[in-house]
Amino acid sequence: MGPPITRRGIMLVLSSPSGAGKTSICNRLLQQETELKLSVSATTRQRRPGEVEGKDYLFLSTIDFETRINRSEFLEYAKVFGHYYGTPSKPVESSLNSGVDILFDIDWQGTQQMKAKAGQDLVSVFILPPSIKELEKRLFNRAQDTSDVVAQRMSKSAGEMSHYSEYDYVVINYDLDKSVQQVQSILNAERSRRERQNGLVQFVKHLSSQL
Amino acid sequence: MGPPITRRGIMLVLSSPSGAGKTSICNRLLQQETELKLSVSATTRQRRPGEVEGKDYLFLSTIDFETRINRSEFLEYAKVFGHYYGTPSKPVESSLNSGVDILFDIDWQGTQQMKAKAGQDLVSVFILPPSIKELEKRLFNRAQDTSDVVAQRMSKSAGEMSHYSEYDYVVINYDLDKSVQQVQSILNAERSRRERQNGLVQFVKHLSSQL
Repeated sequence: MGPPITRRGIMLVLSSPSGAGKTSICNRLLQQETELKLSVSATTRQRRPGEVEGKDYLFLSTIDFETRINRSEFLEYAKVFGHYYGTPSKPVESSLNSGVDILFDIDWQGTQQMKAKAGQDLVSVFILPPSIKELEKRLFNRAQDTSDVVAQRMSKSAGEMSHYSEYDYVVINYDLDKSVQQVQSILNAERSRRERQNGLVQFVKHLSSQL
Repeated sequence: MGPPITRRGIMLVLSSPSGAGKTSICNRLLQQETELKLSVSATTRQRRPGEVEGKDYLFLSTIDFETRINRSEFLEYAKVFGHYYGTPSKPVESSLNSGVDILFDIDWQGTQQMKAKAGQDLVSVFILPPSIKELEKRLFNRAQDTSDVVAQRMSKSAGEMSHYSEYDYVVINYDLDKSVQQVQSILNAERSRRERQNGLVQFVKHLSSQL
């Protein structure tokens, strides 16, 4: 058994219309994949009780956040209801360099921004619901929302869904276990892509030198 | 549970220096993956006892083979010790159209030829031995070859090994079970690539129409 081949980490992006089951898939992945860490976003919104600085979010002042925007220190960011949210690039870069994979639970807008900056490091997966009936059921069950809120979310889903065509992989979430396995296959396969295994050149050089 | 998404099949190419364990991996894959079929080559060499026409090989006359070359009916072909060997393109194309994956156990020369014709359908995996010691051991065990033959094969291996850099994925065969799993992950992941799932457009159209 030789030394493991060093490799560059992967930026694994999962997106979906709300209610397709993406968050459950993310949680399972993080439980089962020890080399996969969830990306920590920065935000300017108030910290809520129970939230831990640096774990749930990096809490920044608006001035600090805007300074970082001007220095291009975010892989993506957005302003939602008056608060900034974004992904700082430095911790991601250092994880990738040490072969740790990062999971991003972001929407298609964030994915578009990240794609432009991340290039080959980014692997994007879009989760689709198996049916509209199922989507509706999940949205109802989740937040005990009123019919109005569910109807609103459903109509938003239609717009989100159309962006599946910008993703590398598409998984239809018929069954949570199978969908988790499918994303794990994607992660495993991507880990053995030649261009990520940056220790290969050295490894083959070593093998050849003994022939 | 909705109807399964129709998808285009994959041309899965496995190559390796001799002795790296590729044939064992291929055999296991064919046992475990029901949607994966081994490509049947055509050849002009004599049929050997026990070989079945259309299963082991398509046995062709030299004239017939050369006519097919002139009609560009091969994905790749080569002449080895006076006999032609090649991969007819028609059966591959019809498998891909019906969503069946085809496994190719070919060398880097065949892969280069196929790549030029197959484009996105082709997924290439290179198997490397974990060490030169292990390679030597496997070459010895396999054919009870004499030291001279083994030495010859070893030196040929060096040349073959250098072509790993033309492949999409690289798997180092430390352990047969794990390597088989790794190739299965690659196959599974590639099956969920968006551009292969040609039924997706229709599926999403149907979902959206209900919103």
